[in-house]
Amino acid sequence: MTIAIDMMGGDFAPAEAVKGVLQYLSQEGSSANLALVGDESAISLLLKEHNVPGGRFQVIHADQVIGMHEHPTKALKEKQRSSIAIGFHLLASGKADAFVSAGNTGAMLVGALFIIKAVEGVLRPTISSVMPKENGGAGLVVDVGLNADCKPEQLNQFAVMGSVYAQLILGIDNPRIGLINVGEEEGKGNILAQATYPLLKANSNINFIGNIEGRDILTDKADVMVCEGFTGNVLLKLVESLYEISDKRRINDEYFERFNFENYGGTPILGVAKPVVIGHGISKAKAFKNMILVAQKMHEKNVLGIMKEKLQ
Amino acid sequence: MTIAIDMMGGDFAPAEAVKGVLQYLSQEGSSANLALVGDESAISLLLKEHNVPGGRFQVIHADQVIGMHEHPTKALKEKQRSSIAIGFHLLASGKADAFVSAGNTGAMLVGALFIIKAVEGVLRPTISSVMPKENGGAGLVVDVGLNADCKPEQLNQFAVMGSVYAQLILGIDNPRIGLINVGEEEGKGNILAQATYPLLKANSNINFIGNIEGRDILTDKADVMVCEGFTGNVLLKLVESLYEISDKRRINDEYFERFNFENYGGTPILGVAKPVVIGHGISKAKAFKNMILVAQKMHEKNVLGIMKEKLQ
Repeated sequence: MTIAIDMMGGDFAPAEAVKGVLQYLSQEGSSANLALVGDESAISLLLKEHNVPGGRFQVIHADQVIGMHEHPTKALKEKQRSSIAIGFHLLASGKADAFVSAGNTGAMLVGALFIIKAVEGVLRPTISSVMPKENGGAGLVVDVGLNADCKPEQLNQFAVMGSVYAQLILGIDNPRIGLINVGEEEGKGNILAQATYPLLKANSNINFIGNIEGRDILTDKADVMVCEGFTGNVLLKLVESLYEISDKRRINDEYFERFNFENYGGTPILGVAKPVVIGHGISKAKAFKNMILVAQKMHEKNVLGIMKEKLQ
Repeated sequence: MTIAIDMMGGDFAPAEAVKGVLQYLSQEGSSANLALVGDESAISLLLKEHNVPGGRFQVIHADQVIGMHEHPTKALKEKQRSSIAIGFHLLASGKADAFVSAGNTGAMLVGALFIIKAVEGVLRPTISSVMPKENGGAGLVVDVGLNADCKPEQLNQFAVMGSVYAQLILGIDNPRIGLINVGEEEGKGNILAQATYPLLKANSNINFIGNIEGRDILTDKADVMVCEGFTGNVLLKLVESLYEISDKRRINDEYFERFNFENYGGTPILGVAKPVVIGHGISKAKAFKNMILVAQKMHEKNVLGIMKEKLQ
């Protein structure tokens, strides 16, 4: 398999992207070939500087870059020779099996939704985020911002996609699905949560355990925590801020260290037809390595194919 | 002024309620007379045991109690001799100027909304919660669960009510109002947030500073943070769980200690015609004392009258 990587995306590109590539190639179990998309001379210089061993990558020149604050649709349309546009071109044409970028999130979403498109049967693709649990484990919150307004049928699909992802990528057996809500009992919640509950309850493709509350997000109650992207985004960013706060206050606690999302491997867009992984703008080498690993796993384990099956 | 207190409400009633009354009466600046509503013999015994000085309270017997898990509307209707029903009766008839309870929250809300009723012009009363800020200050999140589905006009009113409360009760001068959202720029958000932004921007009764994100909830960006009650409830309960987590992990940090909501004075229902303050079921003496102080301040500073004025 081949994974295309946007070497120009993120605040520390291309230097940290190159270091991430080196870490990935040195990692046990790494098996993909890499298409490194970006400014060829800058990348080649860095590859040389870091003694990245040849054989498993090629550099594909892109002489444009989409900036972090450019208008997504406009930039993607006008900058056909940008690293993001070329990455999507490689993916769409089958020259790559997955595409990874820490660049302009909006442009990545637009590319995924309009160039790669949703898996057949998926109403709306979604993005999720890993949530560190106090007991040492990890959960998944879905959606964390792609869909600020949702319908119950969409949340029901998010639950299925999150379940498949948690099982195949996070390695959680028979993941427990919880609906994020304002109370435990069935019937609680806003109109959306009230209407979603019976759909999740009736869904035989998931292990639905009922409503969960804000206090359960960081505990081991549910593995996949489902909500619309407004609530999910607010709570994700709140939790991200805990790392900075604990760092600032020199709390030095192993658990709060895990809120450093810099360490995570970005988030795949679940429900688009091919693996597309988006990283934080602040991604450093480790985050790039992890993103590439997530993309590899998604391809190897046929995550999107299995999602499609479960959504029929 | 007279404040009615439900002595039977909360997990540790009436013992902690009596201790809270003692703390309040001994507190500098406490000036209200108290109507202690509940089981007369139990309360009198405790008052004696704790040597509570007479002169500023009377005990009003109530031979029924609404349990924490009873159906609010049904219980309030059927248990006319309960401490909550009698408390509302005192308030409605003008024999008390405020009512405080750590009992069945649902019954308190039903009583406030249907016996005391909304301030003229208020679309929906709301409940808020103090949010400890990392810099040592405090903010206010409104709504935290009373209104899981909202309209833009309601959020606009929450902003005004929160602003008045922050100024008069929390002592924050010209409070900065932020709209909780998924991005900073105007135009971001779900349909509700998008439609609310221009209303807040045009509202000359508040100091609107724009959108805030999840990462700003615990920092000093905004003093009053406005959202519908679904998001507000989830994030409040998430933040509450941080105290337990930091306690369990023996983190011993002054800031995380402040997430112990047991110390706070409950939350008033903003927008009902008379001061009604609801406490956590887990309220202990300090929480009772603080609840009574909040009720006193709300009356003294004419908080509800000023809200009414600003909402015309």
